[in-house]
Amino acid sequence: MNTVLGMHRFANRVSRMKASTVREMLKTTQRADVISFAGGLPAPELFPTDDIAIATRAVMDTRGPAALQYSITEGVPEIRAWVVERINRLHGTAFTPDDVIITSGSQQALDLFAKIFLDPGDTVIVENPSYLGAIQAFDAYEPRFLAIETDAHGMVPEALEFALGAERQTPKFLYLTPNYQNPTGVTLGIERRREIAAIAANYNVPIFEDDPYGELNYEATAVPPIVSLGTDASVTYSGTGSKMVAPGLRVAWMIVPDAEIRERLVPAKQGVDLHTGSFAQYVFAQYVSTGDLLERHLTKVRATYAARRDAMASALREFMPAHVTYNVPSGGMFFWATVDPRIDTEELLKAAMQKSVAFVPGRPFYPFGDRGDGMRLNFSNAPESKIRTGIERLAQAIHATLA
Amino acid sequence: MNTVLGMHRFANRVSRMKASTVREMLKTTQRADVISFAGGLPAPELFPTDDIAIATRAVMDTRGPAALQYSITEGVPEIRAWVVERINRLHGTAFTPDDVIITSGSQQALDLFAKIFLDPGDTVIVENPSYLGAIQAFDAYEPRFLAIETDAHGMVPEALEFALGAERQTPKFLYLTPNYQNPTGVTLGIERRREIAAIAANYNVPIFEDDPYGELNYEATAVPPIVSLGTDASVTYSGTGSKMVAPGLRVAWMIVPDAEIRERLVPAKQGVDLHTGSFAQYVFAQYVSTGDLLERHLTKVRATYAARRDAMASALREFMPAHVTYNVPSGGMFFWATVDPRIDTEELLKAAMQKSVAFVPGRPFYPFGDRGDGMRLNFSNAPESKIRTGIERLAQAIHATLA
Repeated sequence: MNTVLGMHRFANRVSRMKASTVREMLKTTQRADVISFAGGLPAPELFPTDDIAIATRAVMDTRGPAALQYSITEGVPEIRAWVVERINRLHGTAFTPDDVIITSGSQQALDLFAKIFLDPGDTVIVENPSYLGAIQAFDAYEPRFLAIETDAHGMVPEALEFALGAERQTPKFLYLTPNYQNPTGVTLGIERRREIAAIAANYNVPIFEDDPYGELNYEATAVPPIVSLGTDASVTYSGTGSKMVAPGLRVAWMIVPDAEIRERLVPAKQGVDLHTGSFAQYVFAQYVSTGDLLERHLTKVRATYAARRDAMASALREFMPAHVTYNVPSGGMFFWATVDPRIDTEELLKAAMQKSVAFVPGRPFYPFGDRGDGMRLNFSNAPESKIRTGIERLAQAIHATLA
Repeated sequence: MNTVLGMHRFANRVSRMKASTVREMLKTTQRADVISFAGGLPAPELFPTDDIAIATRAVMDTRGPAALQYSITEGVPEIRAWVVERINRLHGTAFTPDDVIITSGSQQALDLFAKIFLDPGDTVIVENPSYLGAIQAFDAYEPRFLAIETDAHGMVPEALEFALGAERQTPKFLYLTPNYQNPTGVTLGIERRREIAAIAANYNVPIFEDDPYGELNYEATAVPPIVSLGTDASVTYSGTGSKMVAPGLRVAWMIVPDAEIRERLVPAKQGVDLHTGSFAQYVFAQYVSTGDLLERHLTKVRATYAARRDAMASALREFMPAHVTYNVPSGGMFFWATVDPRIDTEELLKAAMQKSVAFVPGRPFYPFGDRGDGMRLNFSNAPESKIRTGIERLAQAIHATLA
């Protein structure tokens, strides 16, 4: 199941790989001996299974009929209240529950935002590289991608300014993942956040700030989200319970301070699924509101993932040849490694699979598929010993490819 | 919560009613003294809250990590297996789990089907009137509606043949709700099912067969679904757990025997929400697989709804003036009543609200909004005594309107 997700997404985007090749690889990644860095999956052994069963019992005993009935499109009131209470407390904002729309995972937030903004030929601004799932969601609306240069500190404001200055038509929105970006693991610095918001406001381009990993921070300091900075930009923010608690609940949220955008999102969501599962919303709300369950869980998750990140960093240092470069992310779930440009990581993946290790090649994260030297390495889903062995195998595959 | 859903849908479609009027009415329907026939809601007092808590505990204890993790887009294997086992047993078909895609409610099935088939200006064939939620889902893709005449036995095959003969371009698909249609409650007869399938096959138009109420049958005999008739048409079938068990789980399914359609639906679904909540899928699968829980529940639901249908039929007979006509549905959740054409039911609703009774006016169920004399009356959500009182109030409102 693990690698299936990563490979599936990959399979849909990269048409140059034959379906039969992908099926073959899928079969291989499901082998028990394969160490996979391909998925973007939380560690399942940390899931609070017992607490979720207890929360469900409490919900069924106290508000069972409401939790099993149809609900309103915007989301169950108690979870919307929890979302704003938490965001306001963490970031000093003053949102109200009316600003919140609960979505079926943040993937749905991406789809809905694209659905209300994009017509074929419209322009959407993304980081280069950007999150594959976002590219896939946007692609359905046939936009033109304006892919902005990124470096070790995220999107380069000057590159954004330059690109916007050269556009004839105003792009419909700017999609950003400022914290521990997928795939690069990079954090956008506070100054750049302000600069990018100012540029977006100046050109009247709304921002979609995707923050799935914001609570998975492994250092003392975290950078506040753009939506909390009090800029002139129209910022819609997306957070999720998938990485904080469990993706299987499919409970995520948008903060939509712009009433005009909100009034277009709600009927759009109604048309696609009426509302996010009330059962999962109530169970999630019950769990996160019970004592300090959530804080204790997050403490455990952060400690576990930080140790796995450190294990991957030290294995990369130990085994990788000098031409392999990477950053050490301060949060999230991914390393992004760049290899000698003579290597195409889609080819490398085949060699890696023969050594029973998997990753996601970088090409599909570039909207134009024009770079083949990157690879995304997930560290949240395997224990340290497996990470070390997997990176060792991967390094062997890289050596073999250049030999 | 009850009426909110019905009114929301209504509010989005009928732009001629001012937002302030709708808000005013919403406030009124939430008053405790209002009897609402407006929603399309199951009876919450029948929901198996205790059994769902027990099922969740069993899932958490035996496969908790899988139920809380990301899953594959097509759906959790055990629920796909259950769906085909049940359909094959009920209808003598031979589908396999590979034919099944689990969706986030059947609303999502409508959206996905439209998403892969419809570009702006394309034609989609619907019944006239048709399900409001389908019209809303399709509307997002800006199609042209070809609305086919219906009578007391459903879509008229000759009207379909005539309309298709006059089309220059082949419509992209035909949307049908053969069982206890929403809003009319009408059942499409077996002969018409075959005729319509033959016509669709002849013109090469795929059928989307929406069957949310198929298991809510209150008579000894039920008509088999088109997908089971072995016709030459390409039929995609949609069923749901919302009416059988509980809508709050948002677990529904498509049977997609046509591999080409399936291979377009899966990436489309992946782009909009990755997959339907694994937690809800596992809990649903556990519940329906535990002993005879589901059969006992369905027996109770059918008996309760049949009694409520009978109560509504007898109240309509007792109180309604002669110009009000209606059918008695043999399943599902709705009566459809037609009033004297001098009455517009949107106006009537205001008078009804003053008498503390609500319904959904018929106009938005017609793609062209060209008939105002219908009203949809839900009978599943209120006990018999309330149904009788509500219909009496509604009859008074009708009398007052024509006075």
